[in-house]
Amino acid sequence: MKTLRVPEATVTRMSIYSRFLERLDRNGMTTISSNEIADGVGVSPAQVRKDLAYFGEFGTRGVGYNVQTLLKYTLKILGLNQAWPLAIVGSGNLGQALSTSRGFNARGFRVACVFDYDAKRVGKRIGQLLVQPIAQFPELTRKENIRIGVIAVRNSLAQEVANIMVQSGVQSILNFAPITLRVPADMEIRNVDLSITLELLTFNVGLKAAQSL
Amino acid sequence: MKTLRVPEATVTRMSIYSRFLERLDRNGMTTISSNEIADGVGVSPAQVRKDLAYFGEFGTRGVGYNVQTLLKYTLKILGLNQAWPLAIVGSGNLGQALSTSRGFNARGFRVACVFDYDAKRVGKRIGQLLVQPIAQFPELTRKENIRIGVIAVRNSLAQEVANIMVQSGVQSILNFAPITLRVPADMEIRNVDLSITLELLTFNVGLKAAQSL
Repeated sequence: MKTLRVPEATVTRMSIYSRFLERLDRNGMTTISSNEIADGVGVSPAQVRKDLAYFGEFGTRGVGYNVQTLLKYTLKILGLNQAWPLAIVGSGNLGQALSTSRGFNARGFRVACVFDYDAKRVGKRIGQLLVQPIAQFPELTRKENIRIGVIAVRNSLAQEVANIMVQSGVQSILNFAPITLRVPADMEIRNVDLSITLELLTFNVGLKAAQSL
Repeated sequence: MKTLRVPEATVTRMSIYSRFLERLDRNGMTTISSNEIADGVGVSPAQVRKDLAYFGEFGTRGVGYNVQTLLKYTLKILGLNQAWPLAIVGSGNLGQALSTSRGFNARGFRVACVFDYDAKRVGKRIGQLLVQPIAQFPELTRKENIRIGVIAVRNSLAQEVANIMVQSGVQSILNFAPITLRVPADMEIRNVDLSITLELLTFNVGLKAAQSL
């Protein structure tokens, strides 16, 4: 099969289009043009058409897109035509914030278990879930068919948690610890470094200041 | 002045190079080649050279880069040659996680105040800080010269918080509420949607599954 090379920015925009289409669908809208999608999410119409073209031909010239059909395609493209139970390791402030986050409990995602190393935290309730001991990770994640693990522990534990995830058959990791983890090449891993987002802000503020000189 | 058009991915990589250089500098390394930078952060040497070229000529052919000089340039480019005190509004799990995050308290960033609407939370201690009432936002942020505001409240309060930030002279906003905020065009705003990162993961896992058919 031909390997698709889809830019990450396109995938991110597909998420945004998909959420927008979800809203339209809820509001009973049935067709939409690329110009209206562009307007609704704040990118150019050419960009919308270019992004969608990576994945095939969806619209009808002069008629636009069927909202439900395009929504279904975007969900399929994003791998969201199936359920994605998640396991979070770490039940501190970040783990708790993620466990109860709407984004983490929507669009096919569902926080199915939360684990901790700290015996004092095990057994505590977070929303509907009880914090489980890390030793239970392999058994519980297999039982729940979990393929995404979220690392929300302190740096010194992060590599050990990654190893446990690899050994337990988790396929992908979302890592919030600001360190580089060693995982097998076939493991899908994504690091979330919140301070890099801050630096994007200061870059732009600094740039504007420089340009107003 | 000519407007620079630097891709966001380049700015993100500048953050990554800059952290890597910081580590080298701490370890006493004085010069480095673009190949070594590429190796250290996991991108191609051509990408490193292309990224740095947006900002000028830094290296000497055959010698490479002086670590301290290049580090200083990257910090300046990222706007980090100055202090950036932050104000966080919202002292729930997310606000607390951010307040004590190493990323939020490094490289020129420092969480200077945390505010909340909830009288029951005001006065509580988070690390070195006491949670302040939201009514104090204009006065305290002016006193602390805060130019970055972080929104970590529930959706229904997020627009009101953004308005308060605009009125108080904050220049940029990092918004964790998964809604679109209306702010003046000259306000630098960046939305952090953690679930979009999840969809990047599922897109790639789905793609791999499709390609192995």
